[in-house]
Amino acid sequence: MKSDIDICRDTRLTPIEHIAEQAGIQQQELTPQGTLKAKVKPAILKRLAEKAEGKLVVVTAITPTPLGEGKTVTTIGLAQGLAKINRSVMACIRQPSMGPVFGVKGGAAGGGYSQVAPMEKLNLHLTGDIHAVTAAHNLAAAALDARLYHESRLGYDEFTAKTGLPALRIDINNICWKRVMDHNDRALRMITIGQNEPGKTINGLERHDGFDITAASELMAILALADNLHDMRQRIGHIVVAYDLDGKPVTTEDLKVAGAMAVTMCEAIEPTLMQTLEGVPTLIHAGPFANIAHGNSSIIADKIALKLSDFVVTEGGFGSDMGFEKACNIKAQQANRGPDCAVVVATLRGLKANSGLYDLRPGQALPAAIFDEDNAALIAGFDNLKWHINNAAHYGVPVVVAINRFPQDTDAELELLQTMINNAAFTTHVDVAISEAFGKGGEGAIALAECVVKACQHQANFTPLYQLSQPLEEKIMTVAEAGYGASHVELSPLAQQQLAQFKAQGYDDLAICMAKTPLSISTDPSIKGAPTGFTVPIRELKLCAGAGFIYALCGNVMTMPGLPEKPAFMSLDIDESGNIIGLS
Amino acid sequence: MKSDIDICRDTRLTPIEHIAEQAGIQQQELTPQGTLKAKVKPAILKRLAEKAEGKLVVVTAITPTPLGEGKTVTTIGLAQGLAKINRSVMACIRQPSMGPVFGVKGGAAGGGYSQVAPMEKLNLHLTGDIHAVTAAHNLAAAALDARLYHESRLGYDEFTAKTGLPALRIDINNICWKRVMDHNDRALRMITIGQNEPGKTINGLERHDGFDITAASELMAILALADNLHDMRQRIGHIVVAYDLDGKPVTTEDLKVAGAMAVTMCEAIEPTLMQTLEGVPTLIHAGPFANIAHGNSSIIADKIALKLSDFVVTEGGFGSDMGFEKACNIKAQQANRGPDCAVVVATLRGLKANSGLYDLRPGQALPAAIFDEDNAALIAGFDNLKWHINNAAHYGVPVVVAINRFPQDTDAELELLQTMINNAAFTTHVDVAISEAFGKGGEGAIALAECVVKACQHQANFTPLYQLSQPLEEKIMTVAEAGYGASHVELSPLAQQQLAQFKAQGYDDLAICMAKTPLSISTDPSIKGAPTGFTVPIRELKLCAGAGFIYALCGNVMTMPGLPEKPAFMSLDIDESGNIIGLS
Repeated sequence: MKSDIDICRDTRLTPIEHIAEQAGIQQQELTPQGTLKAKVKPAILKRLAEKAEGKLVVVTAITPTPLGEGKTVTTIGLAQGLAKINRSVMACIRQPSMGPVFGVKGGAAGGGYSQVAPMEKLNLHLTGDIHAVTAAHNLAAAALDARLYHESRLGYDEFTAKTGLPALRIDINNICWKRVMDHNDRALRMITIGQNEPGKTINGLERHDGFDITAASELMAILALADNLHDMRQRIGHIVVAYDLDGKPVTTEDLKVAGAMAVTMCEAIEPTLMQTLEGVPTLIHAGPFANIAHGNSSIIADKIALKLSDFVVTEGGFGSDMGFEKACNIKAQQANRGPDCAVVVATLRGLKANSGLYDLRPGQALPAAIFDEDNAALIAGFDNLKWHINNAAHYGVPVVVAINRFPQDTDAELELLQTMINNAAFTTHVDVAISEAFGKGGEGAIALAECVVKACQHQANFTPLYQLSQPLEEKIMTVAEAGYGASHVELSPLAQQQLAQFKAQGYDDLAICMAKTPLSISTDPSIKGAPTGFTVPIRELKLCAGAGFIYALCGNVMTMPGLPEKPAFMSLDIDESGNIIGLS
Repeated sequence: MKSDIDICRDTRLTPIEHIAEQAGIQQQELTPQGTLKAKVKPAILKRLAEKAEGKLVVVTAITPTPLGEGKTVTTIGLAQGLAKINRSVMACIRQPSMGPVFGVKGGAAGGGYSQVAPMEKLNLHLTGDIHAVTAAHNLAAAALDARLYHESRLGYDEFTAKTGLPALRIDINNICWKRVMDHNDRALRMITIGQNEPGKTINGLERHDGFDITAASELMAILALADNLHDMRQRIGHIVVAYDLDGKPVTTEDLKVAGAMAVTMCEAIEPTLMQTLEGVPTLIHAGPFANIAHGNSSIIADKIALKLSDFVVTEGGFGSDMGFEKACNIKAQQANRGPDCAVVVATLRGLKANSGLYDLRPGQALPAAIFDEDNAALIAGFDNLKWHINNAAHYGVPVVVAINRFPQDTDAELELLQTMINNAAFTTHVDVAISEAFGKGGEGAIALAECVVKACQHQANFTPLYQLSQPLEEKIMTVAEAGYGASHVELSPLAQQQLAQFKAQGYDDLAICMAKTPLSISTDPSIKGAPTGFTVPIRELKLCAGAGFIYALCGNVMTMPGLPEKPAFMSLDIDESGNIIGLS
């Protein structure tokens, strides 16, 4: 089979204006950026306010191997499959970070014959939204260090006399806003800034700091959760960047930088319209992580797509314990709109990996044996799929299992898996289809599309796990126990103290975002399958007042990846004709 | 008078496709980014290869006050003036950095009725070129630290065994590639990276580092000097990022990251077409500093504009000792194309400032008295203007002095200045006109435009100060002595040692880029007027092998600005209708 970029380059694409027109977007609602991508103005929602909404299909997965199970391929493939059976459909996905593109994972445009095109535009820069988030985030950081410096240099009284601004009295030991960069750069995880030549102070105050990858910025979560430009502006102003010497929160509004941050992001709030290889209109918007953030593309993009088409296919990051849980408890509650159907992507290799019989490690290739026929492993791993189906059922949503077929998969094994699914008892509508979207595009996802149409005929009875009005600790317990099936939650003394602090500061009604490993339903990445009776240890809480959640760190979560020994960037170049080569 | 952004917003702009069509750019050579900006494909140069070139007018200035003398206003105004007298004309300017926009100086789109529009697009993001430079630059930095880490972690032999790549043996104490960010962030000037929790090493190797503002990146100079995409790719590969343990240069090609950097910048190489408030087509491209780099917009943009119009108006940063010298000795030699006319912008306040009778300090407002009538100061300051006229004459180029009129300027003073110019003897054609481009747009620059047309009828006899084939030390002497009028050059022991090293490494034929203060013709910012008999001390040399020059640090040059107590960002916001407010 051809490489992804070659498949993409050999496909005749449709001018984006035609894609937009077919989707029902009017010319004045579109800002083309070249011929194959265009910004869509959120003002379209006013025009379509009275129109009925389509069905929202959220693609999730079993507990993934470190390589992923093909959620984006299935999302794009399913959208193409729905188009093949003449349904009006749009897809909504996140914008890929350049970090993984240059690092290990490669692009995130789907793959094979189920891609968003042109993949080199999607994977690099696109329409600059991630750069805008980086710039706005780092502007706040520069504003903070500059304020710290000038207040210290002049003294609080003179600072106020000179500027007419109140002294913020920021506690240098209580700053919670790092800097960001859209690269995998481990050397920036822990740094010291504001250093000076001996005897000088012109570079500001020395302190510990660090960079996260841009996807981990609270601004990225805000972009994905904001309802409109005005809401984004307000949320940005609520961001707490530090605490003052009395322990009171210092916000970007206090720094008088929230307006400029919103200005920096005012084009980023418009989703970008692209197309799949088969011409299905696709909105690309935002790219929040699925651990320290909610891991779903934007509310604005979903809303636009739901007004324009009968089916909207989107995805949540990692397994259903991660992105899908957050789609239901964070995104859906803020958007006031839950999913109508969940698609759980499973692979034979992924289920076997969940048997616990294979030794899998992040950053390493999967063992070849995992592709051999192994009924015992498949049967053992099935528990994990069952767990994820039941998890979606918790939220009152019908489920379709999409078996993402790999070339090595045998018919016998595929049949065994289908039989197991069909024979199991569930509390919601459950169906299953094999997807060959990677190799065959929409044609390979027709069966899946038909199952999804059928599932959407079952009225979803969407219910989040908790209400925002419940106390923070209750919401944490609910996600861990009702959500994961844990038997206990253990808050560290630090987390307990932070909990009390956030409640006292009026943040009790924020949502809870669990930052845990995606490689297990529990918080221990080595525990595969469908564990029970485990404890969820919560080390630390972090406030994201602008995004509207508090994230709970369960173990270590890496917010700045590193480059491997032989990174993906080494194969990228420009050929004699000026084309990009080596992108996957 | 209205604010810049209000003037801009109240002007009816022409769709960029029409601007392009009028300029002679065909549809397939244009990639519109919305309706008011578009990328222009350098492939246009192939179609127009046989077409004759227009006249290249380079706008420069007297030794500026820290506020600048209005070069961009004059550049845009002159282009509009030429259009008013029915000349075919384009302007070429640099892309503004967001650092000054959020910091002190404000935007760089011109001002008043001589602006590039829409100014909020030009000043923020534009088409993402600066972000692309930032991303490509920091990718190389991440690649370097990752290589350092993995080679150290595995040992050289195991690294090679595992990856098949040679060990680069980078000397951690001899790294010359910092990181960059497009913000004024003094806290990042001197930092320590690669720090770890006690007993761990997963964040790489600890070392000193720092961030420059993106305009200071060698990649920005490369973007401005590259002839085409292929040339840019080759230049990127020549960048020296560090030295190995034997003192041999380590390039981005050695890191196998040059291809990915070029991929990251492959859209940035296309200039962006915009328009002035009066509809003159303007190419925006690159934004190198005028001290540690050559401070002019791109060769590609100039070449395209010269093929499309009879007059091309561009500008070099700071006074004629800085941007114009570099336009002649660096840019013109690489482009094989010198200017046909120099416009020297002078202001009454700037000449009085050059009298040495006023106490001016960067970051502080000019004293009000400088706008009062003061013939003595004007006469004393005239020496500086004379120096800059003669400097342009050195290069064999006719000169037009543009007196950028301020509302407070009296007719008597303006007349005195014109008389002094007309009565002085010069070795080149010299003319003078008053420009009221700020308040009156092109109408206010008709007299200037007529002078420029006349000057361009005088055949320029362009000659750079030195040939690239001369030895490095000779080129340094030539710029300091023949260029500035210095009597001596003093190389520090470090600079002498570096000179020997660069010669030994085969870099003797690179150009010389003087990194000195713009606030004096000498290297001491407090010496105003037209100093003679001074010494140019050279502290350090820095190799920019990809850009094709070595820059010589004469004193301290700040490559990362800081934010003031009350930065410009504080007035920026989004109003109820979603419009940007507070940008100037």
